[in-house]
Amino acid sequence: MTEAADRTDAERELLAATERAIAEYGVSAVTTQKIADEWGRAQSLVHYYYDTKDDLVVAYIEWVRDGFQQRYAEHADDPPLQRLRWAVVGDLDRDDCADPTTAALYELHAQAPHDEAYRAALNDLEDCAREFVETAIIDGVAAGTFRDVDPADAATFLLSAHDGGVVRTVSLDRTADADNLRAGVEQYVRHVLLTDDAREDWTGFAEAGD
Amino acid sequence: MTEAADRTDAERELLAATERAIAEYGVSAVTTQKIADEWGRAQSLVHYYYDTKDDLVVAYIEWVRDGFQQRYAEHADDPPLQRLRWAVVGDLDRDDCADPTTAALYELHAQAPHDEAYRAALNDLEDCAREFVETAIIDGVAAGTFRDVDPADAATFLLSAHDGGVVRTVSLDRTADADNLRAGVEQYVRHVLLTDDAREDWTGFAEAGD
Repeated sequence: MTEAADRTDAERELLAATERAIAEYGVSAVTTQKIADEWGRAQSLVHYYYDTKDDLVVAYIEWVRDGFQQRYAEHADDPPLQRLRWAVVGDLDRDDCADPTTAALYELHAQAPHDEAYRAALNDLEDCAREFVETAIIDGVAAGTFRDVDPADAATFLLSAHDGGVVRTVSLDRTADADNLRAGVEQYVRHVLLTDDAREDWTGFAEAGD
Repeated sequence: MTEAADRTDAERELLAATERAIAEYGVSAVTTQKIADEWGRAQSLVHYYYDTKDDLVVAYIEWVRDGFQQRYAEHADDPPLQRLRWAVVGDLDRDDCADPTTAALYELHAQAPHDEAYRAALNDLEDCAREFVETAIIDGVAAGTFRDVDPADAATFLLSAHDGGVVRTVSLDRTADADNLRAGVEQYVRHVLLTDDAREDWTGFAEAGD
């Protein structure tokens, strides 16, 4: 990504420290001093890069978005079903969700109703996920794998289920729910998305290669 | 509910003030002083009822759970499809989600990874929702309306989609997504849940009476 390439090593270290600090203290309680401590540099150096905490937090969300975009680009040529598996049920287990990125994004979504700049940056992030899943569905329809469903409806439903699944894992530690959710998504894929021909060949997400 | 009946008017007013204060300040920043101000009484009176802020917050979650349980009981004899509509897509619009209960629960879920007592109380709340939706599915299977799906898988999938939908509305203000999500849930109900006979008669959630 152009944006990612433009960041210096120091900036990337600062953004990673921002993530850890938000995950640890919450976005309301975090300060540029705490972020500086996490980074191991002076607070004045934080303010050399970003005028305010809000600017830094928005830059952090943009950095996450660029990272997602890069991974979306890496998966862009995978078969449509494999793209769905990766985006919708690929990271539902406790070990996947317990990373500081998930924790920080969770904190930021909770704060977004009170902060227009966070909300706008998080909507950009959501648009990227939505485009990736919609494109997978459109490609699957074109390939005859999926029925002619409305891509926006299907993508919103699947991404909502994914996000609600992450809530269950991160907030509620309901680790067994991930298996229930995966099975529920499989039923949806089998009976709503797949064409009759594709359904016969499909053995579920557990199988490699789809 | 027995628990609800045991609360005095003053306690209920205190719990409602707790909700508004959490929604306004966030659960990390809220104090028993701020809750007392919201309540219009002395902080010492808050501590007469609850020793600590944590005790009060847990009591608030239990109060919400009792309210949900009461509404679940009121809908317990509705036809299974109508129960699903009410629980899964009934409150996705901005006006429904913008209430202080949704905002407070949202804050509490963000805090739950850092607080075992909040997490336990929120899991009780989740268990109630899960039981309501699973029972609707079990009843629908028994009535021949639904196919013989796994109730835990279907309930987890539908409740996850609902919760992810609320995230989109509350955090991201993506009001159009509610329509996409409703349409996605309808496809799931039509092609995964409904038996062939029931599918022929069903015109979607928009129709009254199901």
